[in-house]
Amino acid sequence: MSINQATIKYADLATALRVTADAGVQSIGLWREPVAEVGLRDAAKLVADSGLRVSSLCRGGFFTAVEGPERRRSLDDNRAAIEETATLAAAGADGSAAVLVLVAGGLPAGSTDLRGARERMRDAIAELEPEARASGVTLALEALHPMYAADRAVLSTLGQALDLADQFPVASVGVVVDTFHLWWDPQVLDQIARAGASGRIVSFQVCDWVTPLPQDVLLARGMMGDGHIDFAALTHAVDAAGYRGDVEVEIFNQAIWDAEPASVVARTVRAFADNVPLSDAPAENPPR
Amino acid sequence: MSINQATIKYADLATALRVTADAGVQSIGLWREPVAEVGLRDAAKLVADSGLRVSSLCRGGFFTAVEGPERRRSLDDNRAAIEETATLAAAGADGSAAVLVLVAGGLPAGSTDLRGARERMRDAIAELEPEARASGVTLALEALHPMYAADRAVLSTLGQALDLADQFPVASVGVVVDTFHLWWDPQVLDQIARAGASGRIVSFQVCDWVTPLPQDVLLARGMMGDGHIDFAALTHAVDAAGYRGDVEVEIFNQAIWDAEPASVVARTVRAFADNVPLSDAPAENPPR
Repeated sequence: MSINQATIKYADLATALRVTADAGVQSIGLWREPVAEVGLRDAAKLVADSGLRVSSLCRGGFFTAVEGPERRRSLDDNRAAIEETATLAAAGADGSAAVLVLVAGGLPAGSTDLRGARERMRDAIAELEPEARASGVTLALEALHPMYAADRAVLSTLGQALDLADQFPVASVGVVVDTFHLWWDPQVLDQIARAGASGRIVSFQVCDWVTPLPQDVLLARGMMGDGHIDFAALTHAVDAAGYRGDVEVEIFNQAIWDAEPASVVARTVRAFADNVPLSDAPAENPPR
Repeated sequence: MSINQATIKYADLATALRVTADAGVQSIGLWREPVAEVGLRDAAKLVADSGLRVSSLCRGGFFTAVEGPERRRSLDDNRAAIEETATLAAAGADGSAAVLVLVAGGLPAGSTDLRGARERMRDAIAELEPEARASGVTLALEALHPMYAADRAVLSTLGQALDLADQFPVASVGVVVDTFHLWWDPQVLDQIARAGASGRIVSFQVCDWVTPLPQDVLLARGMMGDGHIDFAALTHAVDAAGYRGDVEVEIFNQAIWDAEPASVVARTVRAFADNVPLSDAPAENPPR
């Protein structure tokens, strides 16, 4: 299990590393903003000193702008994120994964051209992939729940993510399997098997779907066991697909953010043990 | 174009029929609750006197309860809805469609067994289909947006709806194509073509996806043109698939509900003309 830093969003990097390690968790998924707060060099040192593995860096992406300065800024920012991913994974303990999680981006303001936005997402991956490959970083395409298709991510299903990933080398482009985003999909088990067969699963993230949705649907995620997701079915599918990397718990939830970080990590460890039935120890074998 | 009665939710049946006909709209999609308010016999007379076609009756469904009294009540209620559909379509003008729109239902309270809920939905359709066929009614399976998968509809994509419909006779089980629920789906155009080729499209409903989502996501629908949906692409696909039935505008939106019904219908007529590019007059040729 890995604690994704977003689950304890208000903790700074040093605190996040400390409470994670203190709880006996061996891995952490980092976010760029708290890394930037201390600077990449100091962040890498903190990570190295923590003894933790790094399971991923969140996040790059936002690829759907039409050609122009905004798009160039976004691509340059992704280039920086690729380098940060390589640096932080190198600083992490053995088994760290140089995986950069990517969120596609939504429709540009006023646009209804979903097809065009999806093409521009593809073009951005094509532009960045050689640079990721050169840095030993895997770009992790994350399909987000379709309720975010307009304003956050035009990549909406695991099948769509695999159709895109399959256009690129397996070492440099993979996919994220996130229970919150994918649990409803009638094709999800088949697509997880497909992703495993092609070696594309580079991140497995878990949290629950709770109802009613809160006013800000970005914060709709819940602790495993508090909602409607069948974690056994999805975990077994990911296990059977051959994924042996860290399993990140990533929860955007105001009440959880407002709680004391160490208590959140302790609660997360318990909920994970109760709800996510891994068939064997995944931590010793990074995804590739 | 047809006004789905939910767009002017607070109008009683007589008012809804009047403002629709007064606006020169020739068709209406009815809801069971306002029909029940006046009683089926009087409702049928009001419909006949209006001169309007009936494009559908909303709605039956809620099929996911485990076997027991709740499930039996739900199935009996659907039997009543089948009879209401036949009666109201017979009372409507030529070209009326005896189409009963079905919403699958969500997960039972406390359950995470999505697969089981989907199987029980299938079993309910199998139980009701012979009765629909005997009454000349088509059961219209409506895939709802995946954000409702937990609490409202375990039927989440058009492809899933077609996989289900294909198990039954084409005359008695079809599918609804609703822009709000399906616009994000990378497979939607292919699945619309598939639905047309198999003669399964029995209802086409339009409204827009607006952001940010309101606190109650059931009320997230917007007037065509106010949101992010590419109506041209979807309408052309439904046209090309051979659908020539009425196109219903169905909008759940508090501000629209709070407006005066006749003004809503007038606004709907304009938004439809501006945003939904039908290739020919659909009204003369009901779906079958």
